[in-house]
Amino acid sequence: MTTVDFTSFLEPKSVAIVGASRSPGKPGYLVISNLKANEYPGKIYPVNPQAQEIMGYKAYPSVADLPEVPDVAVILVPASATIEAVRDCVRKGIKAAVIESGGYTEVNERGAKLERELLQSAEKGRMRIIGPNTSGVISTPGRFVTTFYPLGKVRRGSVAYLAQTGNFATHTMRWILSAENFGVSRVVGLGNKCDVDDADVVEYFGADPDTRVICMYIEGFKDGKRFVEAARQVSREKPVIALVGGVTASGSKAVVSHTASLGASNPALIEGVLRQAGVVSIHRYTDLIDSAKALVFQPLPAGGRVGVIVPSGGMGVLAADTCVRLGLTLAELSQSTLKKLQDVSQPWIRIGNPVDIWSAIQNHSLEEGYRVAMEALLGDPGIDSLVAILVLTTDNPPPNLDFIPRFREKYPGKPVLIGVSGDKASFDLAKKTLESQSVPVYLPVEGACEALATMYRCSLSMQRGKHTRD
Amino acid sequence: MTTVDFTSFLEPKSVAIVGASRSPGKPGYLVISNLKANEYPGKIYPVNPQAQEIMGYKAYPSVADLPEVPDVAVILVPASATIEAVRDCVRKGIKAAVIESGGYTEVNERGAKLERELLQSAEKGRMRIIGPNTSGVISTPGRFVTTFYPLGKVRRGSVAYLAQTGNFATHTMRWILSAENFGVSRVVGLGNKCDVDDADVVEYFGADPDTRVICMYIEGFKDGKRFVEAARQVSREKPVIALVGGVTASGSKAVVSHTASLGASNPALIEGVLRQAGVVSIHRYTDLIDSAKALVFQPLPAGGRVGVIVPSGGMGVLAADTCVRLGLTLAELSQSTLKKLQDVSQPWIRIGNPVDIWSAIQNHSLEEGYRVAMEALLGDPGIDSLVAILVLTTDNPPPNLDFIPRFREKYPGKPVLIGVSGDKASFDLAKKTLESQSVPVYLPVEGACEALATMYRCSLSMQRGKHTRD
Repeated sequence: MTTVDFTSFLEPKSVAIVGASRSPGKPGYLVISNLKANEYPGKIYPVNPQAQEIMGYKAYPSVADLPEVPDVAVILVPASATIEAVRDCVRKGIKAAVIESGGYTEVNERGAKLERELLQSAEKGRMRIIGPNTSGVISTPGRFVTTFYPLGKVRRGSVAYLAQTGNFATHTMRWILSAENFGVSRVVGLGNKCDVDDADVVEYFGADPDTRVICMYIEGFKDGKRFVEAARQVSREKPVIALVGGVTASGSKAVVSHTASLGASNPALIEGVLRQAGVVSIHRYTDLIDSAKALVFQPLPAGGRVGVIVPSGGMGVLAADTCVRLGLTLAELSQSTLKKLQDVSQPWIRIGNPVDIWSAIQNHSLEEGYRVAMEALLGDPGIDSLVAILVLTTDNPPPNLDFIPRFREKYPGKPVLIGVSGDKASFDLAKKTLESQSVPVYLPVEGACEALATMYRCSLSMQRGKHTRD
Repeated sequence: MTTVDFTSFLEPKSVAIVGASRSPGKPGYLVISNLKANEYPGKIYPVNPQAQEIMGYKAYPSVADLPEVPDVAVILVPASATIEAVRDCVRKGIKAAVIESGGYTEVNERGAKLERELLQSAEKGRMRIIGPNTSGVISTPGRFVTTFYPLGKVRRGSVAYLAQTGNFATHTMRWILSAENFGVSRVVGLGNKCDVDDADVVEYFGADPDTRVICMYIEGFKDGKRFVEAARQVSREKPVIALVGGVTASGSKAVVSHTASLGASNPALIEGVLRQAGVVSIHRYTDLIDSAKALVFQPLPAGGRVGVIVPSGGMGVLAADTCVRLGLTLAELSQSTLKKLQDVSQPWIRIGNPVDIWSAIQNHSLEEGYRVAMEALLGDPGIDSLVAILVLTTDNPPPNLDFIPRFREKYPGKPVLIGVSGDKASFDLAKKTLESQSVPVYLPVEGACEALATMYRCSLSMQRGKHTRD
């Protein structure tokens, strides 16, 4: 059981910004402007010995002067000054601190010593630390953000990121907000994790009603055994996917100067930990977005039998290769499904799975061709999931694709993932339209198949986890 | 040596459209409208027994009635009528035909018989066939297009596609035209390749002065030995990359109903053929675009030592992992390079490769930070290539990135590939700006590293090929 009180970190009623600044662009300014942009409902206490007021908030010369004990302190002063800041916080009785500055174990032995001192001081006061060397946390339910990167309003949703990188609270979050259509519940950037670690966070995310999907980027575990214990429980109930950084010698060397993690030097060990924990490994940074949206938008498939619809034979071949390579099975179509497909296609077409939709959309409208074929596959009891690659161009008015999200009601347990081939403008429009109705959209050919394969591995992991418990 | 006269197929002075149509949207209409959109400079002869005129061109009731022997015939009539059309063309003395209709070997034994008959008739008249079951060819130098998919004007460039799929002359070409910034020289969709095959085309592309990069999608070889002989010569002079479809049992089954290729049932054999031929295998459909643009925009690296610049430690770890996994080496930085990087960074930063640029862009401007670091790496004699991941958002006016394309002049043999993290609008703008100056742009983290690794494998293959010949 984690001993960390995450309410202080993620839904605090008050926050001290130690190292607040009046200069736009400075971290101590940007944290406050992010809190404002997210309409943080709690009390904000800027701490700055030179300021009377920052962005409309009364500033205090020191933590000791604050009119109450805030739930959390965000510490932005340089590494050399953090030990004093931590002591001030402890003396005040603050129980949670996010330490964002770098210059600790990831730099040199002097930094490592400083990091140990921080922790000792905090432990004396029973104060918990996230960091150091992190952009901290985002919590949309708490409307709370500690990051020093300008984010604006973060879209609320059910995906949580547990990352040993600041990216998900900084520029990658900007990408998610501007290019994607799903929202996040929480982001915790752990940095050097001198105190709060993966096991604590995954356990919290597991119990968090606002989180349905858990995505991790990790460079090593402080305590693999504790992580397995925590994550095994969680991965029975929610999909947990993880990207491991530092799996090569050069990557591992880069880890040392990034978060100084120890475990990363042994990637096989980390893989073993993840497997025991029921966590599904992914292998590309973009999967942390592409798989996340599939997992949060669509139900997990009950089995691995996929139906595929493509606008070209070549895409069918490649989709089949991708699915099979990643552990899915191309479903055998029933006689009744074959007949439905044959009825909409030109008579000379050889029908199989993948279904080449080209002749059906020549015979009928594009909308009608896809609608009939998708319905035929989804209605087949031998099929657990559907990938359909649409072909869309700006030559014609965009087809009404609302029939696709509506399949969810009739076939509630079968995930549907879409690829779009054709003009960029058509792709962008279909992505926006469909994803706003919880149907994930990918570039052809591999994207949708890869995300579905990750979903299936999550489904298997949950089934195994439940079986083990029973 | 190929016996195919590709001038007739790709730079014909006159073309007969057998099965031309007055109905917008029909294949026989769209081929002509594509020719118009590409300002085809030759003679267009629509053949249609019911029409006087189609889109401003005088129509002829039959091939026999044409006022001259056209260089090439595009045959669009249904499979059942093709044998007559082929005989008409042969009688007229036409020496080249693109047969686009489907319904042959890929469908059933009756279709296979029909395909054999087509070929026999053509052989009698020494007429060569591309197809059947294909969208045919695109040739920007010839301003010639046979595809029945509305394309508009195809952007001229130096990438050639040899594909056993129609996609590169249809919807994937629409993606390239609307989302990418490189141009193509030729596209040949081979379909069932009853006559003209991969060996013929690759030999032609090898000798084609308009083609610098050759990309293939293949589902099998008719004659692997002949392909090896042809491609070995070509891959010494130009990069040749290939994606193989049908490498799993389900993919291979899909091949049968797509192009009826035989070789696809033995992927190991195909891989062996490619290796002997000096052709570099790629593994994702998107690589046919992402690697193509790197190969056509940038020089091949002389060696595998890469310098990497990232805006975050986590991205550095993942970039290093990706490079190393794909056969590149993270370069050791010289003392002088380290000093230059240290000079622009905050003093407490531990400098290494990948270079974490964050502190330098905090110290200086974003432009200055990247400029100094990129120049330092490119000037290091121990580095063969550079991947830089920029971090860009819409908060600030877009930085002037023109210094990046200018490195090409000073460091002509070192490829530079860019990733962009941040807002989608910033990504789109940087991609347009940089790619219009021949610097390829990718989403972080893996894209740029993967394309560079493909370039390096092409470089090795060319070096080996030259060595073998000497």
